[in-house]
Amino acid sequence: MDKIIIEARINELASKDDNSNVPLVPEEIIADSVACYNEGASVLHYHGRNSDGTPNNSPEIYKEVNSGIRNVCPILLHPSLGYIANDASAEERFFAIEEMMKKPGTAPDFAPMDVGSVNVDWWDPKSNRYTTTDLIYKNSTETLMYFADRINHYGLKQYLVTWNVSFTRQLEAFMKMGIVPEPAYICICLTDGICLSGHPGTPEGLSAQIQFMPKNRDIIWTVVNYKGNLFKLTEMIINAGGHVSIGLGDYHFKEYGILSNAEIVAMVVKQARDLGREPATVEETCEILGIEPTGNGSKQN
Amino acid sequence: MDKIIIEARINELASKDDNSNVPLVPEEIIADSVACYNEGASVLHYHGRNSDGTPNNSPEIYKEVNSGIRNVCPILLHPSLGYIANDASAEERFFAIEEMMKKPGTAPDFAPMDVGSVNVDWWDPKSNRYTTTDLIYKNSTETLMYFADRINHYGLKQYLVTWNVSFTRQLEAFMKMGIVPEPAYICICLTDGICLSGHPGTPEGLSAQIQFMPKNRDIIWTVVNYKGNLFKLTEMIINAGGHVSIGLGDYHFKEYGILSNAEIVAMVVKQARDLGREPATVEETCEILGIEPTGNGSKQN
Repeated sequence: MDKIIIEARINELASKDDNSNVPLVPEEIIADSVACYNEGASVLHYHGRNSDGTPNNSPEIYKEVNSGIRNVCPILLHPSLGYIANDASAEERFFAIEEMMKKPGTAPDFAPMDVGSVNVDWWDPKSNRYTTTDLIYKNSTETLMYFADRINHYGLKQYLVTWNVSFTRQLEAFMKMGIVPEPAYICICLTDGICLSGHPGTPEGLSAQIQFMPKNRDIIWTVVNYKGNLFKLTEMIINAGGHVSIGLGDYHFKEYGILSNAEIVAMVVKQARDLGREPATVEETCEILGIEPTGNGSKQN
Repeated sequence: MDKIIIEARINELASKDDNSNVPLVPEEIIADSVACYNEGASVLHYHGRNSDGTPNNSPEIYKEVNSGIRNVCPILLHPSLGYIANDASAEERFFAIEEMMKKPGTAPDFAPMDVGSVNVDWWDPKSNRYTTTDLIYKNSTETLMYFADRINHYGLKQYLVTWNVSFTRQLEAFMKMGIVPEPAYICICLTDGICLSGHPGTPEGLSAQIQFMPKNRDIIWTVVNYKGNLFKLTEMIINAGGHVSIGLGDYHFKEYGILSNAEIVAMVVKQARDLGREPATVEETCEILGIEPTGNGSKQN
C-alpha cells in the first residue's frame, strides 16, 4: 500500500493547560517541527500564537515561523488562515498568505480551504450546554473561489477540509468547475468532545464521510479528529489507505501520559509500520500529492 | 407499522414554469390544501408568494392563508419562516409567527427550526457552475435557541430540519439541553439537482442521515428531497418506518406528467398502502407527534 502521509497538527487553539507540550511561540513551533519531522511527519500544521496562548494571526509571525523552519528542516508547511469564525473578507483572510509569498523562504506549501459553512459553537458535555452561541464558520462560495484562485495562482497546494457531506458535495462541484486541481488533498475533519461540528470520531462517522468522497477523481484523504482521540480510528484509516493528521492542537491525548507532538507522530509511525505502511518522506509526500518539493528556502514567489 | 404522516410541500420557491400546478396566491394555496387533505395529507407546508411568483413573507399573507384553510379544512399548518439566506435577526425572522399567534384562527401548528448553517448556493449541473455564490443559510445557535423558546412558549410543534450530520448533532445537543420536547419531529432534507446543500437523494445519502439520528430519544423522522425526485426513496422510507414530505415545491415530477400536489399525495398514499401503511389522519398525526389537534379556528394564543 502507499506510504502514509503524517501531518503534525501541533497547536491549533490548544492551551498549555491541556498539555504543557503545546508549542506557542515561534521558537517552540520551530523546535517542534524538527522533532515531528525527525519522527516521520512530512507536513506541519500550525497556528500563530502569543506566549500567553492568545491567537496571533499577523503575517509577521507566520513569516518568522516559516523561514525559521525552512532554515532547519524540509517539512512541508501548512499554516492556518487564522481564527475560523469571523466576518472578515476573503482578501483579509488570505492576506497573511499573500505576505508570506512576497519573500523567498517564507512561503508555505499548503493553504487551507474549508469548503462550506457550519456552526462551530463550543459544547460542554458535562453541563450539557453551549459555552458560545454565535459562532458560524462562514466560507461562502465566492470566498472559496477567491481562495482557490489565489492558491492556484501561487502554485500552492489546496488543503481541502470537509466537515460534513454538504462540504464534500461543494468540493466535488469545485472539481467539476476545474478550480480544484487533482490530485485533491482532502482532510476529513471529524469532531468530538466539546465540538459537535463534524461527523463524530467513530468508525460510522468516518465511513459516512469516506463513502461520499468524489467518485472517479484523483483524491487523497487524510483524517483529523478535532477535540477527540484519533487513535481510536488510526488502524481503520491506515488499513483503508488514508492518511493521518494528528497532534496536540486537536487533543490532549492524556490517556497516554503527557506526550509531545513528536511522540504522537512516533506512535502513528509505529502503528502504520505494524500494519505494513511506511511513513512518507517529504519527497514521497510531494510525489503523492503532485507538488514540487520545496524546503530550505527554495520556494519563491 | 405506524400510520404514515404525509406532508404536502406545495410551493416553496417553485415557479409555474416548473409546473403550472404550483399554487402561489392565497386562494390557490387554500384550494390546494383541501385537495391534498382529501387525498391523505395531514400536514401542509407553504411559502407566501405573490401572483408573479416572487416571495411574499408578510404576516398578512400567512394570516390570510392560515385562516382561509382553517375555515375549510383541518390539515395541520406548517408555514415557512420566509427566505432562507439572509442576515435578519432572530426576532425579525420569527415576526410573522408572532403575528399569526395574535388571533384565533391564524395560528399555525408547526414552526420550523433548521438546526445549523450551510452554504445554499444554486448549482447548474448542465454548465457545471454556481449561479449564485454568496448564499449562506445562517442559523446561529443563539437564533435557534430563540426560535425554540418562542415555539415552546406558544405550544407549537418544532419542525426540526437537518441538512447534514452537523445539524443532527446540534439537534441532539438541543435535546440534551431540554429545549427540544419529545417526541421530536425531524425532517431529513436531502437535496439533488440544482441544490448540493444536503445529503444526496440516494439510499446512501438517506442512510447516512438516519444512522446519526439521536439514540435513545423519542424521534419521528420524515424525508424531503429538495430539487430531486423523492419517489426514488419512498419505498425505502415507508419500509423503514419514516414519513414522507413531498410536493411541487421541491420538484416538478415531470417524469409522471404535469401532476398536481394532490396527485402526488395520492401516489404516496397508494404506495404506502401497497406496503402496508395507512396514511395518518390529522388526529392520528397529532397523536403520533404528541400535539393537540387544532383546526377550524380553534387554535388561540
